[in-house]
Amino acid sequence: MGELHWKTSITRVEPNKLLVRGYPLEELMGKAGFGQMVYLLFKGELPSQNAGKMIEALLTSSVDHGATPPSVLSALTVASTGAPLNAAVAAGILAISKFHGGAIEDCMYILREAKKIMAEENLGREAAAEKLVRAYKEKKKILSGFGHRLHTKDPRTAKLFQLAEEYGVAGEYIAMARAIEQKFAEISGKALPINVDGAIGAVLCEMDFDPQLANAFFMIARLPGLVAHIVEEKTRQKPMRAIDPKDHEYDGPGERAVPKDL
Amino acid sequence: MGELHWKTSITRVEPNKLLVRGYPLEELMGKAGFGQMVYLLFKGELPSQNAGKMIEALLTSSVDHGATPPSVLSALTVASTGAPLNAAVAAGILAISKFHGGAIEDCMYILREAKKIMAEENLGREAAAEKLVRAYKEKKKILSGFGHRLHTKDPRTAKLFQLAEEYGVAGEYIAMARAIEQKFAEISGKALPINVDGAIGAVLCEMDFDPQLANAFFMIARLPGLVAHIVEEKTRQKPMRAIDPKDHEYDGPGERAVPKDL
Amino acid sequence: MGELHWKTSITRVEPNKLLVRGYPLEELMGKAGFGQMVYLLFKGELPSQNAGKMIEALLTSSVDHGATPPSVLSALTVASTGAPLNAAVAAGILAISKFHGGAIEDCMYILREAKKIMAEENLGREAAAEKLVRAYKEKKKILSGFGHRLHTKDPRTAKLFQLAEEYGVAGEYIAMARAIEQKFAEISGKALPINVDGAIGAVLCEMDFDPQLANAFFMIARLPGLVAHIVEEKTRQKPMRAIDPKDHEYDGPGERAVPKDL
Amino acid sequence: MGELHWKTSITRVEPNKLLVRGYPLEELMGKAGFGQMVYLLFKGELPSQNAGKMIEALLTSSVDHGATPPSVLSALTVASTGAPLNAAVAAGILAISKFHGGAIEDCMYILREAKKIMAEENLGREAAAEKLVRAYKEKKKILSGFGHRLHTKDPRTAKLFQLAEEYGVAGEYIAMARAIEQKFAEISGKALPINVDGAIGAVLCEMDFDPQLANAFFMIARLPGLVAHIVEEKTRQKPMRAIDPKDHEYDGPGERAVPKDL
Repeated sequence: MGELHWKTSITRVEPNKLLVRGYPLEELMGKAGFGQMVYLLFKGELPSQNAGKMIEALLTSSVDHGATPPSVLSALTVASTGAPLNAAVAAGILAISKFHGGAIEDCMYILREAKKIMAEENLGREAAAEKLVRAYKEKKKILSGFGHRLHTKDPRTAKLFQLAEEYGVAGEYIAMARAIEQKFAEISGKALPINVDGAIGAVLCEMDFDPQLANAFFMIARLPGLVAHIVEEKTRQKPMRAIDPKDHEYDGPGERAVPKDL
Repeated sequence: MGELHWKTSITRVEPNKLLVRGYPLEELMGKAGFGQMVYLLFKGELPSQNAGKMIEALLTSSVDHGATPPSVLSALTVASTGAPLNAAVAAGILAISKFHGGAIEDCMYILREAKKIMAEENLGREAAAEKLVRAYKEKKKILSGFGHRLHTKDPRTAKLFQLAEEYGVAGEYIAMARAIEQKFAEISGKALPINVDGAIGAVLCEMDFDPQLANAFFMIARLPGLVAHIVEEKTRQKPMRAIDPKDHEYDGPGERAVPKDL
Repeated sequence: MGELHWKTSITRVEPNKLLVRGYPLEELMGKAGFGQMVYLLFKGELPSQNAGKMIEALLTSSVDHGATPPSVLSALTVASTGAPLNAAVAAGILAISKFHGGAIEDCMYILREAKKIMAEENLGREAAAEKLVRAYKEKKKILSGFGHRLHTKDPRTAKLFQLAEEYGVAGEYIAMARAIEQKFAEISGKALPINVDGAIGAVLCEMDFDPQLANAFFMIARLPGLVAHIVEEKTRQKPMRAIDPKDHEYDGPGERAVPKDL
Repeated sequence: MGELHWKTSITRVEPNKLLVRGYPLEELMGKAGFGQMVYLLFKGELPSQNAGKMIEALLTSSVDHGATPPSVLSALTVASTGAPLNAAVAAGILAISKFHGGAIEDCMYILREAKKIMAEENLGREAAAEKLVRAYKEKKKILSGFGHRLHTKDPRTAKLFQLAEEYGVAGEYIAMARAIEQKFAEISGKALPINVDGAIGAVLCEMDFDPQLANAFFMIARLPGLVAHIVEEKTRQKPMRAIDPKDHEYDGPGERAVPKDL
């Protein structure tokens, strides 16, 4: 044991034995879903099946958003130079930053702030929401997690909140997100609907995740999408092409329903 | 439509509408597991529930391997300089390369080569395996996916193959991997057991994935583990510490069984 | 001219014509040193020969610091996985962050703060330095750019300041750095000598560079060093080795004098 | 001395002493130009002043090429997400790959191949060039380093070769590059002029650098340009803008001559 000796609490590795947070990895395989594994790694404990499903729904909601987000464009740009898959992925990951994905974390701080106002000033939910909205408007601060340049009624938000009810995850934070949405409309006379980042932020608050992990969920969610785009670039496009960030169209399968018995 | 106009077949994005490979994203949420989403993004079609579970088992098998792999060490090194989470993740991703994770892809080529020998030379499985093993020994080529410096009987391999049987995924490739393992032992008189990379490679062959996607599965699997290590570095350790790659010990929860009703 | 039309003021590119900040690139070649080119790109104007030499001295001072800095270790770790040169360089660059190289920028803010105290409170240099040192001690804030875990009398600092005199760059900021060093010793009774980061910060202040560019100078300086280490890793070491951050020794050429007529 | 003990021959670090390849760093400062430092780090020995100037001319030639190269676009895309400077630089570095900058290395192999033909087949320069050109045409292999989509007569090529004469660097490789250019025109009836990558490749061959270092020179050259573009993005543009890879114009200083007495 040298002077640099250090400790880690994540995985125990011995010959023919791998314990993640104490659990034999081979016992987890086939039993724990990927959402439960993410929870186990981040929190140290295995969650309920429903909590695992909540995380998978949240990951699914952000798995891809077409070819315009900067993470896709930086990944494609690097891929088009002939770089290997992991280098293109890394360039995509580097774009998941303050303004791209960052709204999830920012919204978590806003919802926590609102709940603190409730507690510290002994206010009801609506009164706290109103106080927060007025304060943000006055200081011209942005309400991260609310509003979207494209989606006025994001189908992912409604679905996330519906599933949160089903899975028993919904509580004060989701209610607060809705209260803020409503108060903003009342005060300013225009809608600023909760977007998918805000909905994810509310769900992560309900599950008591550290806001600093918000971008981790977004990175995990988006990784398969990034890979699909990179592979498409490498197989369908010429190297070193100039990649227009807007002038592209979708030519995949037409709209189809998810099979009932999936 | 300008001269740079291009096409993409992954996701259709319209106001209040997101179709991934044709499927409304909100319908997939809560219904498709994360493994199924990965399959959908990579192959363009929704797989069976069992195929989705196979992918999740495969991701779970590689979710973490303690603090010694180079992807963890490069991520920790960058994290210790005060860099943001995504920069540390990118440094980890950059290490998932030829010699780290690359054995999955290499093993897929070996198993395909063996199957090609069967088909082209009209040989049985065992004869083809023997021919391949002798050729590799003669040319002193490495049998990627076989042997491990630490695990002589990797519990993850056995479990992956068992699940592949249960999920109806097992077929000729897994049988071939076992034949190669056995022939090697017969010919050289020493064991070179299939390792987890080899087992994953065999499963990905069974599911007909392009070998170029092999490292993508490893990156997706390892991302939550990388994040857990980075967060531990940022919360438990002093910045700019010298990180010993070997002199560390596990101090997390003791061994415990996965709950039956997980 | 579409809706995304944008402007850039760095380089004009036409067939057979390249103007960097207005200057034909081929006229700069052979005439402008690399230090002058860096200045031209960062500030938009060509500097004097002496200013160019100052920058090259500053880059030379930070070109390498052996194998222990985190930028080298993350680069080596990625290189050892068989990744290409540029991926290993990128991993090194990702480590040049808040705590590694960041002291240059932080020291620039400290020196500017001290000069502001002089101006706003109408104080002499020594009085301003004393005020700043006392304030930092009281708030237990770190005096970035002062003190070093290894070098008590860094030869690079003395040389940088000597060259700054020769090149006519030295002025109030370097004087202030020295005043802070002296006042700290007087007040606390122990030495906290200006380190190389502090000296570079003072020189960059004298040359009126934006503190946000501080890390850029460090990245440019360190890039050749990173490449040398990566190439050494790829040629001298086995892939996937465990890289000890401390237990290594130098086995290159013995100490030798720089030729007089270099 | 533990089991992981290793050796490095680049820099010796002791308290108050830094020896790069044996030379005290403070003696190099102010004396060695940055080009000489790059040579010292890559080759282990200090070059002549002329060799140093040759390298700086080569770096200057590639310091920037406007806003369209993929390295700039990936860097800008990451910068626009609010990521720190070094993360944007890393994204740019990741794009300096096979098809972007890679022609320098490829051209070095071509020139070495041509020289090998001369030696092994006892041919004159022109005959060897003709043989190589015919072989490449027959196999439809690309003559990397020759031809450019924009520049038919690249002013940087002529200048690099002129400086190579002046500095005493020019020899058989540059002559061979010219012979290949001429033979190609004779054989195919159309011009495929040596481009800047080819010229750099020829110069690096003359200086006996390992072709695997080719991209390192390009990365070092381009780093200040990348930083200038990233800073411009952060200061002139709104975050998260869609970056058009072609629809931009230069609005910097008009054409101006480099001062005679620079």
